[in-house]
Amino acid sequence: MSTPRWLSPAEQRAWRTHLALHKLLMHRLDRELQEHALSLNDYEILVNLSESPGRRMRMSDLADATIQSRSRLSHQISRMEAKGLVTREDCRDDRRGTFAVLTDEGWETIQRVAPDHVAGVREHFVDRLTDDQLRELESAYGPIVDHLKKLR
Amino acid sequence: MSTPRWLSPAEQRAWRTHLALHKLLMHRLDRELQEHALSLNDYEILVNLSESPGRRMRMSDLADATIQSRSRLSHQISRMEAKGLVTREDCRDDRRGTFAVLTDEGWETIQRVAPDHVAGVREHFVDRLTDDQLRELESAYGPIVDHLKKLR
Repeated sequence: MSTPRWLSPAEQRAWRTHLALHKLLMHRLDRELQEHALSLNDYEILVNLSESPGRRMRMSDLADATIQSRSRLSHQISRMEAKGLVTREDCRDDRRGTFAVLTDEGWETIQRVAPDHVAGVREHFVDRLTDDQLRELESAYGPIVDHLKKLR
Repeated sequence: MSTPRWLSPAEQRAWRTHLALHKLLMHRLDRELQEHALSLNDYEILVNLSESPGRRMRMSDLADATIQSRSRLSHQISRMEAKGLVTREDCRDDRRGTFAVLTDEGWETIQRVAPDHVAGVREHFVDRLTDDQLRELESAYGPIVDHLKKLR
């Protein structure tokens, strides 16, 4: 085996800054959502369903969209069913599994919570970056996202 | 209440790119660590302890350093104790709680696994960014990290 290429101090600072930013930000946004009795995971599911035709998605597509395993998503959906935010529906016309469907209560919840959540995303992230920085972020991270998606 | 300031398309792309990057990257690095029977959370604890004097940290400091609650960290440390990677030691000379201490096996594990993990961090992140992009990342995210730390 060759000698490990350890990170340089500058590389290590950038990497640890990314990790710290993400962890602190998720922690903060999750806490803010708790005031609405939601978690960040709940919110992400609600957003995905609310943006889909018929406010419904196949469980397999929802697992892909939220980058998690089917089994983890299934537990998540069970918790959200218990809160009345979503229901499951079997596909009648094909055998490719089950849909997760937003309930009226789920739809009302996302409408009610979204303004606060977006305000938090602005306050703690977007409004602290210039337009140039936002563009640079997208152009730096976008190709890495494409690379990582190919590995899944 | 005022009209919500929704994200512009460019802001939304940047925000969602950040989220996707992080999730895919953690998923990938976690999978690579599974080949060594470790999780990313395990790895982070091992790194923190291995870099501390005496390879030990007070549980409260370790919780702060890894940005998680005391109770979540306590469960994490119990799982790592069962694997023989860490032990707990009571502080004799003060009452400010318990230390987590790296075992010899934990130390050997981090030495053995670190080269592979760093290679993954390079392959999937650091080496896909230019030196300029790494600098920009640090200067964009660093002040936000400072802001979020003040809120904790």
